[in-house]
Amino acid sequence: MTTHPRSARPAVLAQNQYGKAENRVVRITRDGATHHIKDLNVSVALSGDMEEVHYSGSNANVLPTDTTKNTVYAFAKEHGIESAEQFGIHLARHFVTSQEPIKTARIRIEEYSWERIGTSETDPSSAGAEDGGHSFARKGQETRVTQITYDGSSWEVISGLKDLVVLNSTNSEFWGYVKDKYTTLKEAYDRILATEVSARWRFDWTDDEQPMPDWEESYAQVRGHMLQAFAQTYSLSLQQTLYQMGARIIEHRDEIEEVRFSLPNKHHFLVDLEPFGLKNDNEVYFAADRPYGLIEATILRDGCEALIPVDLSNL
Amino acid sequence: MTTHPRSARPAVLAQNQYGKAENRVVRITRDGATHHIKDLNVSVALSGDMEEVHYSGSNANVLPTDTTKNTVYAFAKEHGIESAEQFGIHLARHFVTSQEPIKTARIRIEEYSWERIGTSETDPSSAGAEDGGHSFARKGQETRVTQITYDGSSWEVISGLKDLVVLNSTNSEFWGYVKDKYTTLKEAYDRILATEVSARWRFDWTDDEQPMPDWEESYAQVRGHMLQAFAQTYSLSLQQTLYQMGARIIEHRDEIEEVRFSLPNKHHFLVDLEPFGLKNDNEVYFAADRPYGLIEATILRDGCEALIPVDLSNL
Amino acid sequence: MTTHPRSARPAVLAQNQYGKAENRVVRITRDGATHHIKDLNVSVALSGDMEEVHYSGSNANVLPTDTTKNTVYAFAKEHGIESAEQFGIHLARHFVTSQEPIKTARIRIEEYSWERIGTSETDPSSAGAEDGGHSFARKGQETRVTQITYDGSSWEVISGLKDLVVLNSTNSEFWGYVKDKYTTLKEAYDRILATEVSARWRFDWTDDEQPMPDWEESYAQVRGHMLQAFAQTYSLSLQQTLYQMGARIIEHRDEIEEVRFSLPNKHHFLVDLEPFGLKNDNEVYFAADRPYGLIEATILRDGCEALIPVDLSNL
Amino acid sequence: MTTHPRSARPAVLAQNQYGKAENRVVRITRDGATHHIKDLNVSVALSGDMEEVHYSGSNANVLPTDTTKNTVYAFAKEHGIESAEQFGIHLARHFVTSQEPIKTARIRIEEYSWERIGTSETDPSSAGAEDGGHSFARKGQETRVTQITYDGSSWEVISGLKDLVVLNSTNSEFWGYVKDKYTTLKEAYDRILATEVSARWRFDWTDDEQPMPDWEESYAQVRGHMLQAFAQTYSLSLQQTLYQMGARIIEHRDEIEEVRFSLPNKHHFLVDLEPFGLKNDNEVYFAADRPYGLIEATILRDGCEALIPVDLSNL
Repeated sequence: MTTHPRSARPAVLAQNQYGKAENRVVRITRDGATHHIKDLNVSVALSGDMEEVHYSGSNANVLPTDTTKNTVYAFAKEHGIESAEQFGIHLARHFVTSQEPIKTARIRIEEYSWERIGTSETDPSSAGAEDGGHSFARKGQETRVTQITYDGSSWEVISGLKDLVVLNSTNSEFWGYVKDKYTTLKEAYDRILATEVSARWRFDWTDDEQPMPDWEESYAQVRGHMLQAFAQTYSLSLQQTLYQMGARIIEHRDEIEEVRFSLPNKHHFLVDLEPFGLKNDNEVYFAADRPYGLIEATILRDGCEALIPVDLSNL
Repeated sequence: MTTHPRSARPAVLAQNQYGKAENRVVRITRDGATHHIKDLNVSVALSGDMEEVHYSGSNANVLPTDTTKNTVYAFAKEHGIESAEQFGIHLARHFVTSQEPIKTARIRIEEYSWERIGTSETDPSSAGAEDGGHSFARKGQETRVTQITYDGSSWEVISGLKDLVVLNSTNSEFWGYVKDKYTTLKEAYDRILATEVSARWRFDWTDDEQPMPDWEESYAQVRGHMLQAFAQTYSLSLQQTLYQMGARIIEHRDEIEEVRFSLPNKHHFLVDLEPFGLKNDNEVYFAADRPYGLIEATILRDGCEALIPVDLSNL
Repeated sequence: MTTHPRSARPAVLAQNQYGKAENRVVRITRDGATHHIKDLNVSVALSGDMEEVHYSGSNANVLPTDTTKNTVYAFAKEHGIESAEQFGIHLARHFVTSQEPIKTARIRIEEYSWERIGTSETDPSSAGAEDGGHSFARKGQETRVTQITYDGSSWEVISGLKDLVVLNSTNSEFWGYVKDKYTTLKEAYDRILATEVSARWRFDWTDDEQPMPDWEESYAQVRGHMLQAFAQTYSLSLQQTLYQMGARIIEHRDEIEEVRFSLPNKHHFLVDLEPFGLKNDNEVYFAADRPYGLIEATILRDGCEALIPVDLSNL
Repeated sequence: MTTHPRSARPAVLAQNQYGKAENRVVRITRDGATHHIKDLNVSVALSGDMEEVHYSGSNANVLPTDTTKNTVYAFAKEHGIESAEQFGIHLARHFVTSQEPIKTARIRIEEYSWERIGTSETDPSSAGAEDGGHSFARKGQETRVTQITYDGSSWEVISGLKDLVVLNSTNSEFWGYVKDKYTTLKEAYDRILATEVSARWRFDWTDDEQPMPDWEESYAQVRGHMLQAFAQTYSLSLQQTLYQMGARIIEHRDEIEEVRFSLPNKHHFLVDLEPFGLKNDNEVYFAADRPYGLIEATILRDGCEALIPVDLSNL
């Protein structure tokens, strides 16, 4: 704290980062007539000794964002794309170790998945089964995401997914809550519970000396546990369901230390059909857009530190 | 044509329509512990003797848009939702036959599909298989659409889909085109062909006396033929692929008279890696957003009339 | 009509068009230290003798969509961008007159407007006033649009706007409507009327022999009349307001033959505060998203033909 | 840290919050025939003693999100909406002081601004000037935002804006940067500099004992300084422009301790017209979407602590 009067204290630079965002890279691997596809959206953010470019405009320490874009495409050739996580690790290591002024690199990746288009003539409606060689349809369900951060000595890997919409048509209640003068909500003993899952989980892998997780297998397993916990929990509140989803992952997947969820309560309101002389026995719902309940929490392996930011929106 | 001077000719009302748009209705059907879900977005547009409401503001002939919304929810109970098409037919018939001033009803429906969440404990990563009872994940691939129009005597049913992204990683060329002074494009002998399919097909069913198509089966079959034609066509241009997709439907599905496609060419540009001393052997692509080629055409059963509008965007 | 059995009738090509969509072109004109900016999104659609490219894949008649993109940029230099309409006319004429197989060209343009950033030191909060030379802020209100169609002999010019949100906080009623068994709506004698204007108007200019309208002045005047009619109409229904907006244009602007509106009724529902012991005297509203009333109509100069398509969404 | 083996360590709850998001409230204030409008999107997030609802599903400490929604609407009547900041302060204080289990409240607000529709008959194209009484057009430029956090003793107020697109058509260069093996970018000595400003600034007001800033005046002034710094900086890098924007605010506005920017570099690439025999003298540009440079930094009053999160996306 300085003794200058407040208004005389100058502006100084604090946290800063830069890079090329949303590099859309598609990598085709040909195994004879059978092709494989990886479809990523890669964002690079670098930080380090960057005072001068802010204060004077000198770019002497600045690797152009255009170069970071070129590096993404070159690395897709040089290293291939085994998984989004592995690809991000290659990139982060490169920027930090090859450019002296760059102290930290953070790579964010979105991955879009594809399924093969079937080509069986006998039943065209089964198109989508996995027997084609070079033809794909984008799955369009969740978007897989990962964020790799490297500071030259340790790694942080946070993976996750977003846009996965799930719904239970029963086994959800909501009652016994606080009532104040602004409360008008009726208690519910059988309601629809629906949400659009945004989840991030942090790996215990932080050091090149540790064995690396199998990123693809881990993703499939975590996703599966999360969906099963959602489906199997008899829910008294969305918070309870959220906790079960996270706890299931912590219990079954040793490589995960922490999970954070942002779960909008996608309200499905039972429509009042009585004015029309009809009884609505949990059959007809209005799916509302806004406003929506928003439930967010971190589930942690006991003894670990919570490091995933509170706001997931662009993580 | 009147003989008044142009500027003295008054304003008159021409085509007009009104109704409630985007009614989000979810219908749960319970078959014991196994639930079924239909998830629709229903838009109602009515027209008829509506001069007065425009000229004087008299609402004497106007059924409120709020009432058309209520009718959607009431009909979900009264008639159930067997298919989007059948549901639209119930609604259109109701408005035209129950309200004298309403001469035509047009119902547009988007349908979002869901898959069951599996609950097998043995392999959580297989969640998504169909063994759950009341738990669902939104599929998130294409959106199914339909438009039902009824004028009191005949029906027009146009169904389709949008947002279905498909890609062939080979078997596509583009060469032999016109070159003018603004042409710089290099010919391509092995390129990625990708598009986001927007398609609409019109049924031959127009009359209550005709047997009604099996709307669900028809959709599955048309979708399958379309995908197979996309996958199996060795393409010299996206136009050729488009035609094959439409012709396959016309050849295999007697109930369809006409198909229209709007196919953006989702360009995947081969990245030039030579500056980095690397060879790009059809492996690394930049997936571009804008601009994009846009290829649109109607494929017609010979002798039928083309009735699907040229612009599909909100059809 | 052929005498072949229905299923034996082959698929044939009907209406088709192609071109490059969404070419984003920004044109800077330097008048000393004062710069001017035009910011357009240009989509080209060409049609003509294109059977072969669909049937056999021969591109012999196909000017590449990439070339149509190049032409947009080259013309921004060669002809400048006086107005979106004039620019579209240059492009459409070029494609139809320079390429024999091309019979019709349709150019669609979106225009984004900018205002100058003021640089007066004395009152920084007035930034936005028009005294800067090369610094601009995007206005962000409506998007101006135009569509130019040319078939080698006559022109059709349809201009308009979209995304213009307007609201009257009083002088709107809704009552005296039809009531059926599904009607629950209460009559309203003082409500908010709000809509997001999407409008298109067609010019009487069709022939190179006619004097061309002043496109910029016409746009400003039509927009102004439309807004004033919205503001000044005491409204008994949104249809009545719509008609007044169109009629005002027809009455005041001789160059316009036809106007079409698509007006979503952006519902603002008075919130029931009585459960909290509060009276809501038209003060507190819930702005709803979906569903919404959708009112669409064409207002025509008497004796003219209605040519604007019913669906405006991507027109 | 426990001595249990890793996999035996149970899942525990860490940071969590809940509430109703995106409550759309419009408040009309009538001053005779002149009405005033405030248009907000309010999101409530509460945290406190919420273990039980996560672990067992007991809602005994849970004020329903529906109640938080009701409170937003009731407070719009009870307190009016003087400014978004003041409204958020009323709400946050209420939740923390009226519900024992709630320890912290965070209110996020987006504000949409409106301008009056002019009604002068003499020049309809001037519609938009401020002479109307109850008719408004949404301005549509930036969205104003604020976030109020209260823990029962101290306040944090972070305000800002997003979606403000600005462009300098000259006075921007980029050269003298690092070149590695992946660098292909050409140096630029006169380029367009454009960005979509997302900015957040934190107030020094933290205590009810301090005099409260004039939130409306502060916003207008901060916005103005930011725009002027953008317009007046001769830029050697977007980082330099960013720093000038932040420093100008710190220098002129005593009530601000910290500013953070997220500035995408909206690339405008000079189109190569030489293949067409044309010279592009900084006249014709291609406005690109993705990828884009992304420059982010915090500018701090010396001696203050940086508290605005690194990621602004939903702040």
